Amino acid sequence: MFWSRSFITTLKEAPEAAESISHKLMLRSGMVRMLISGVYSYLPLGYRVLARIENIVRQEMNKTGAQELLLPSLQSIELWQKTGRDELMGETMIRFQDRRGRKLCLGPTHEEVITELAAAYVKSWRDLPFTLYQIQTKFRDELRPRFGVVRSCEFIMKDAYSFDRDFEGLNQIYEKMRQAYEAIFKRCGLGFVSIKADSGVIGGDLSHEFLVPAESGEDVVYRCKICGMVMGAHEAAINECPHCHKDMEKLNALEVGHIFKLGDKYSKSLGVKFLDEAGHQQIVQMGCYGIGVSRLIAAVIEQNHDGNGIIWPKEVAPFDVLIVPVNVSDKLIWDEAVRLHDELGRQGLEVLLDDRDERAGVKFKDADLTGIPWRITVGSRWTKEGKLEFKNRRTGTVTEAAGGDPAAYLDLVRG
Amino acid sequence: MFWSRSFITTLKEAPEAAESISHKLMLRSGMVRMLISGVYSYLPLGYRVLARIENIVRQEMNKTGAQELLLPSLQSIELWQKTGRDELMGETMIRFQDRRGRKLCLGPTHEEVITELAAAYVKSWRDLPFTLYQIQTKFRDELRPRFGVVRSCEFIMKDAYSFDRDFEGLNQIYEKMRQAYEAIFKRCGLGFVSIKADSGVIGGDLSHEFLVPAESGEDVVYRCKICGMVMGAHEAAINECPHCHKDMEKLNALEVGHIFKLGDKYSKSLGVKFLDEAGHQQIVQMGCYGIGVSRLIAAVIEQNHDGNGIIWPKEVAPFDVLIVPVNVSDKLIWDEAVRLHDELGRQGLEVLLDDRDERAGVKFKDADLTGIPWRITVGSRWTKEGKLEFKNRRTGTVTEAAGGDPAAYLDLVRG
Repeated sequence: MFWSRSFITTLKEAPEAAESISHKLMLRSGMVRMLISGVYSYLPLGYRVLARIENIVRQEMNKTGAQELLLPSLQSIELWQKTGRDELMGETMIRFQDRRGRKLCLGPTHEEVITELAAAYVKSWRDLPFTLYQIQTKFRDELRPRFGVVRSCEFIMKDAYSFDRDFEGLNQIYEKMRQAYEAIFKRCGLGFVSIKADSGVIGGDLSHEFLVPAESGEDVVYRCKICGMVMGAHEAAINECPHCHKDMEKLNALEVGHIFKLGDKYSKSLGVKFLDEAGHQQIVQMGCYGIGVSRLIAAVIEQNHDGNGIIWPKEVAPFDVLIVPVNVSDKLIWDEAVRLHDELGRQGLEVLLDDRDERAGVKFKDADLTGIPWRITVGSRWTKEGKLEFKNRRTGTVTEAAGGDPAAYLDLVRG
Repeated sequence: MFWSRSFITTLKEAPEAAESISHKLMLRSGMVRMLISGVYSYLPLGYRVLARIENIVRQEMNKTGAQELLLPSLQSIELWQKTGRDELMGETMIRFQDRRGRKLCLGPTHEEVITELAAAYVKSWRDLPFTLYQIQTKFRDELRPRFGVVRSCEFIMKDAYSFDRDFEGLNQIYEKMRQAYEAIFKRCGLGFVSIKADSGVIGGDLSHEFLVPAESGEDVVYRCKICGMVMGAHEAAINECPHCHKDMEKLNALEVGHIFKLGDKYSKSLGVKFLDEAGHQQIVQMGCYGIGVSRLIAAVIEQNHDGNGIIWPKEVAPFDVLIVPVNVSDKLIWDEAVRLHDELGRQGLEVLLDDRDERAGVKFKDADLTGIPWRITVGSRWTKEGKLEFKNRRTGTVTEAAGGDPAAYLDLVRG
């Protein structure tokens, strides 16, 4: 991909309204653009990161045996009345009437729809267990959208729902999901904590939140300065570590995932029943498991940046390698840049070539801002000595390698 | 994937309300489920087909150099007023006011949003040309939803938008897109025609529709019985082939794609201007290119089925191979079925194993209904002679191969 055709548009300064570092860097690097307050377009650079994160989530969900489907955004208010959540959702849920007079809403979450679906499918113990998930756009009428994609009116979630015959089965899948969540956040390059949490409007018997310590986070966790134990704000009321009996420090944190043991909260009101081996009717036990997929992008940036810009972890970077020819009108430099671009592309890497007729300084600044893991400079060292410079965005380390010897640098950039 | 864990739920009869063959077969094979009239959930089997079609569309779009992004569904009515399409869209566009009093709509199409985006980005001739696309959910307040996913209130579209400095550039990308569309429809196993069309509410100077002859189609095309030439309903008013001067036959057809030379219709009203080499301000020339992605599933089924069910073309099939052990309690049979499942999976094929404790006849019926290209039967021929039966869903041909010799059948099922 050539920069000039890539629709990447960087800004020297972030718009004043941007409050958090992730919001500023997403705007400055041209990842997103605000359409109206709380509503964002993902530009090609931002979409690449989104797609990579979706892919990680999909892979880890599939590993648990969960199956992907796609549920509608348009839902009838009537369905929400059956579980009593119509009122509970209040004004956060976007509602309207269509021209046939149907009272509809845009799904802010999908417990009702999936439970209604399961009720039609589940007949016997043989139909259980199963877990379904989707990666889908949700809508909320946020009164105060903030921090770009962190608290917005339209966002992407992964929501999974498990159906089991008993609590033992629910406990098993809950634990599997907890492990899948840890794998997902680790692959995204995130430091995180999980704590017991309030189940809020979702409800159920038990829930865990996954929180990413981040300056602009709106949640709070407490960490013991001695043993490092992390607790939620309910639990740590006394502000003292229950282990060490020492002060705990207060950290802002961003919620990126939440898993719930719903039990029979939805299956009872929407009638998901099955006949067991003895022919007795039983109620299905459910769990639900959410990840804020678009919000993950912000969380990754909050934890992976420096004064010059974003530092993408390998697995979520929009490109693996950025090639910077310092002078595009020097034929020796240009030819080598294009050769590298094509060769690394053939090797399965995502490569961006900065073909703009700009000063090297401008290109280097944009390289740091957009945070692609490796920058390869093709400059005077190439024309004079046949050497390329490989700069690691995270460590700042520069390694030299001969241009003619792919074996010498392929392992480096794949690393 | 084992059938018992796959959430595939087949029906002997389609619900009475289903009018078209594709709608009937999608319901009977458990691909979709109606939530409310005009609104469908894609169950795992249906979602697999949707994902494969999206993948084909994505690959062919990327080949043209178009870049993927993601635009919001939530849009302000104000933006639509600028192009005068607020009124033109009428009641088809879903509108509501949020709690802050903003007048919003759900995007039925995205010319306004993408043009506003381009206006902020394009400054000089150097920024052109580029093409952007998304695969995204659209919303329409359909007065009379029909034929399942064919005419629904919530559906998935691929919409691409090109930006060029002049008509020559627009003509080039228009031709590239036309070719990409032909590649997409061919890979989906579709017979199709493209005809000059009315540009409707999208507008512009010229447009072509891509139509798939299908019994339940709501469009009409005329085909010459002699030379096979196909024409649209404006053009063929005299009902006589302009070549052969003979009668033309009338065929129902389903619109699956529509491409438009918009010219400056949107770029003028939303101000997408650039400075040319001489420093003169010019208006950008646009094109837009739509494919009804979810509707494509129906189109494929309309053209690929028989009395027993769906016949999936290879590239869009939900699974490549279905393994049917005729008796799951026979250890010899079961072990070979699982071995095959694992081996073919390792070879990169998508494999479904019908592990249900059902009669072979029930399984064979479901195999035909769900339309997976290859059915491998593990039965008495296996236990007695070490032979497996490979049945091709389209041709009905049965080929035998020794179970111990993967080389003998891998080419067959990959074919």
